[in-house]
Amino acid sequence: MSIMALLGSSRRNGNTEYLVNKALQDIDHKTIYLLENEIKPIVDKRHANENFSDVNDDYERLFLEFLKHDTLFFVTPLYWFGMSGQLKNFIDRWSQYLRDNRFDFKEEMKKKKAYVIVVGNNPDPKISALPLIQQFDYIFNYVGIEFVDYIIGKANKPNEILKDSSALKKANLWNEKLKSSTVK
Amino acid sequence: MSIMALLGSSRRNGNTEYLVNKALQDIDHKTIYLLENEIKPIVDKRHANENFSDVNDDYERLFLEFLKHDTLFFVTPLYWFGMSGQLKNFIDRWSQYLRDNRFDFKEEMKKKKAYVIVVGNNPDPKISALPLIQQFDYIFNYVGIEFVDYIIGKANKPNEILKDSSALKKANLWNEKLKSSTVK
Amino acid sequence: MSIMALLGSSRRNGNTEYLVNKALQDIDHKTIYLLENEIKPIVDKRHANENFSDVNDDYERLFLEFLKHDTLFFVTPLYWFGMSGQLKNFIDRWSQYLRDNRFDFKEEMKKKKAYVIVVGNNPDPKISALPLIQQFDYIFNYVGIEFVDYIIGKANKPNEILKDSSALKKANLWNEKLKSSTVK
Amino acid sequence: MSIMALLGSSRRNGNTEYLVNKALQDIDHKTIYLLENEIKPIVDKRHANENFSDVNDDYERLFLEFLKHDTLFFVTPLYWFGMSGQLKNFIDRWSQYLRDNRFDFKEEMKKKKAYVIVVGNNPDPKISALPLIQQFDYIFNYVGIEFVDYIIGKANKPNEILKDSSALKKANLWNEKLKSSTVK
Repeated sequence: MSIMALLGSSRRNGNTEYLVNKALQDIDHKTIYLLENEIKPIVDKRHANENFSDVNDDYERLFLEFLKHDTLFFVTPLYWFGMSGQLKNFIDRWSQYLRDNRFDFKEEMKKKKAYVIVVGNNPDPKISALPLIQQFDYIFNYVGIEFVDYIIGKANKPNEILKDSSALKKANLWNEKLKSSTVK
Repeated sequence: MSIMALLGSSRRNGNTEYLVNKALQDIDHKTIYLLENEIKPIVDKRHANENFSDVNDDYERLFLEFLKHDTLFFVTPLYWFGMSGQLKNFIDRWSQYLRDNRFDFKEEMKKKKAYVIVVGNNPDPKISALPLIQQFDYIFNYVGIEFVDYIIGKANKPNEILKDSSALKKANLWNEKLKSSTVK
Repeated sequence: MSIMALLGSSRRNGNTEYLVNKALQDIDHKTIYLLENEIKPIVDKRHANENFSDVNDDYERLFLEFLKHDTLFFVTPLYWFGMSGQLKNFIDRWSQYLRDNRFDFKEEMKKKKAYVIVVGNNPDPKISALPLIQQFDYIFNYVGIEFVDYIIGKANKPNEILKDSSALKKANLWNEKLKSSTVK
Repeated sequence: MSIMALLGSSRRNGNTEYLVNKALQDIDHKTIYLLENEIKPIVDKRHANENFSDVNDDYERLFLEFLKHDTLFFVTPLYWFGMSGQLKNFIDRWSQYLRDNRFDFKEEMKKKKAYVIVVGNNPDPKISALPLIQQFDYIFNYVGIEFVDYIIGKANKPNEILKDSSALKKANLWNEKLKSSTVK
């Protein structure tokens, strides 16, 4: 197993970061903070005469890193009841790589498993984050990624997630399971 | 009534653009193509010592334009079962303006009405776009915008929307209603 | 094509009945009013030693009728944000017939197409009925029925649906399409 | 605190029953097995000249019991991606009691809190049960019940829930919290 955490938050040391660190404590993994990278929005050339163009940003480097890992943590605060724009742009750009001859995109994706961590605040994210969970499910189904599980945490201010015992317990449970399977 | 259409597509002359033109045919309105503007992702400073910073892109100009209109069309292809990253960044940046003393953000928003146009393809968007419709509902409720109605169209290639008679009829119906209310 | 409308309302001449009559105007079809029939809840014997038992109510007669038709209208008011208990019991009882050797249940279901008509009132059913639409989608996927389309109408008092021009137009559109395909 | 568990399953000793027993272990509570009661579907008389009629079944007795408790567990297997018909009929009948002068229905409901336990199997209920969770949220909002939390378990055969460590942990967590608040 090779684990990568993709953090969509626009600030460091937030509640989503706390939860993913809990889930991956003492487990070898690669973390990518999208806020430290520039990811331009997709320019759709699917129906143009020309092909998709090279884009001058950090995306290809991140995408190549992404491909190397089979266990992916998609981690995002609930921004306006969806994933952050940063993370959305990361996923939107898949449309270009789906059509890039250098990769067998869907074949690569089928080997991957995904965990989702979302933290929201008000109205209660255990309900208001459900459309986002459904969206992730559609995304993963579309490309063949297995959707292992998700955590919906409730917090606003820094460290408020420490009060969400249900989210913390689930992060611990993931940690135990991942540890026992990485050991083997 | 003062109408603005906010187009989230990453290409011109697509199916979403066709539908919104149908809905707003012969009606005075302002159109903004997000792809022609640079909108950076939000940098969250809600919990920082410093305030939100000025951002060097097209957002503030677009946002000031947005504020001038009371009837808003949010128009986006279904990208990965959500709104486009461009449109998501437009909305994510509201978080900064919510806290900007120059505006009474929520008071301004309460005066607005929204229409949503989404076009997807596969799996059938009349189901797979529903999480996005629910997300828009949460967004509009949060800031007090009235959610008038939505159209979910089905199309992929350019002009394929011409075959979706249900979406076209609904765009026509909106057009008739908007015309009769703008005349008054 | 052989059409059957299954009406889940607990009263006659309501808004859902109006819409389905509009959609099926001048088209040969069979209507079943669930309120005129007794349908007991399922008694789950999947994990019991004994088999499912015969049930003394109207279900088997209705189910045999149901099997004869390939185009099905599931019509229900939005009761507590779901289908009526009557209609739910009709569907719950499928679990017994899935395991009944007299029928090749899934093979029969795969030949069928479904239309859904829901009418709600408050909060606005174009949003609050979406979980029910998603539930129908899961149901139809599970047994292989094609989900052609749905109408969500807004009305409360008798005949209030006459004010929902969008729902009426869509019922008309279905009527035109069904007529042209039944003629052939 | 006065706790009532309302079990919608059509068989005893199933996985939902296991989970609710875990959550309420060593805590005083009243359990109602809907399968042991007859609950007829609602007959809608909202728009009739006559009033709602008395119904000859077990409902009124159950409803009076329901009113006595402030903490409610709605427990149901995922039948066809919704609550069981038995439980749906229980809730549908609220429509009659909303209009019954003997009760101040909404005032009574506002004092209550709800927990939901759902167990499904395939496709994975952590996604396919979400429309049902959203439906419960609409129901509780409509009448003013506070929606405390939900568990979505995954199991099919008897006792298979023992393998769902995430659901079991959450039931334990509820148990601890309820115990500490009932002690006070």
